[in-house]
Amino acid sequence: MRNEVRISGFGGQGIVLAGVILGRGAALYDDKNAVQTQSYGPEARGGASKSEVVISQEEIDYPKVIKPDVLVCMSQQAFDKYCRDIKEGGTVIVDRDLVTVPEDFYNGNVKVYKIPFTEIAYKDIGLKIVANMVMLGALVRITGIVSKEAIRKAILDSVPKDTEEKNLMAFEKGYSYLK
Amino acid sequence: MRNEVRISGFGGQGIVLAGVILGRGAALYDDKNAVQTQSYGPEARGGASKSEVVISQEEIDYPKVIKPDVLVCMSQQAFDKYCRDIKEGGTVIVDRDLVTVPEDFYNGNVKVYKIPFTEIAYKDIGLKIVANMVMLGALVRITGIVSKEAIRKAILDSVPKDTEEKNLMAFEKGYSYLK
Repeated sequence: MRNEVRISGFGGQGIVLAGVILGRGAALYDDKNAVQTQSYGPEARGGASKSEVVISQEEIDYPKVIKPDVLVCMSQQAFDKYCRDIKEGGTVIVDRDLVTVPEDFYNGNVKVYKIPFTEIAYKDIGLKIVANMVMLGALVRITGIVSKEAIRKAILDSVPKDTEEKNLMAFEKGYSYLK
Repeated sequence: MRNEVRISGFGGQGIVLAGVILGRGAALYDDKNAVQTQSYGPEARGGASKSEVVISQEEIDYPKVIKPDVLVCMSQQAFDKYCRDIKEGGTVIVDRDLVTVPEDFYNGNVKVYKIPFTEIAYKDIGLKIVANMVMLGALVRITGIVSKEAIRKAILDSVPKDTEEKNLMAFEKGYSYLK
């Protein structure tokens, strides 16, 4: 089973760090294989940011995302660019307040989740910058592709020491947002 | 011109962050294309860490390193595993105090640099943890594949606010180590 995740948004939202944590959690703490990639092209110079993670039980031959099973969009630009790539039956997760999903996008059997990542980060933690951790919490809860405990450990490995508590709180808020 | 860089060592040395900064510097501030990858396999669970960056003027079709032009090793395990992959005429850079390069490795026209990254970080900055920035400084000076100014900007983008000064100092120490 190969799972392809693309996380997209704009620079400063911690898109790269979120991908690193997802890949690290899967590989180091869930005993899977993972490859995590940042591709920077001309679009990155316009402030766009993209991080991809391929997670598999088996060895990963091709490291890039072909058709994402899971697409996260934290900006309208990212949604507009990537929304047509999603796999049939895949899952799209967007920041509710930053992305407008057109009505006709619901055609097909793609599941769409609209969650106020940035608002939760700001209202519950007091820091917009942890919206990426709120997003990871929701992603784990919705998809189950990596265990909650594995991501918690990967967060502790990856964030500065004095920010651990706020990052974990944000992750938990995202995880528990969907009852 | 395609340049392939593999940075390797063990967990906790900031190998992933170094790769992210290198790719980001090349793409966002030097106007090149870059793909940066972390692959986690069974070896990662033994504490090994690897980060790869492909940098090119053109679009990058294949995102993985095939034969590195530049190989950085911050552990003996990493050197022993990857030293035979280096491209003919390539450059190997190791932490002098953590890696022993066998005498016969000098055969061929691979250039080998032995630099005390960890010692410089500890003695000059007071923090072993910035050895990765010392390494980036030396890498930029030796290879010239990314400009000094681009890496400085990418460091500022990527490290926590209150650590900017020490990270930049460590980068400069690595850059100026080779006269």
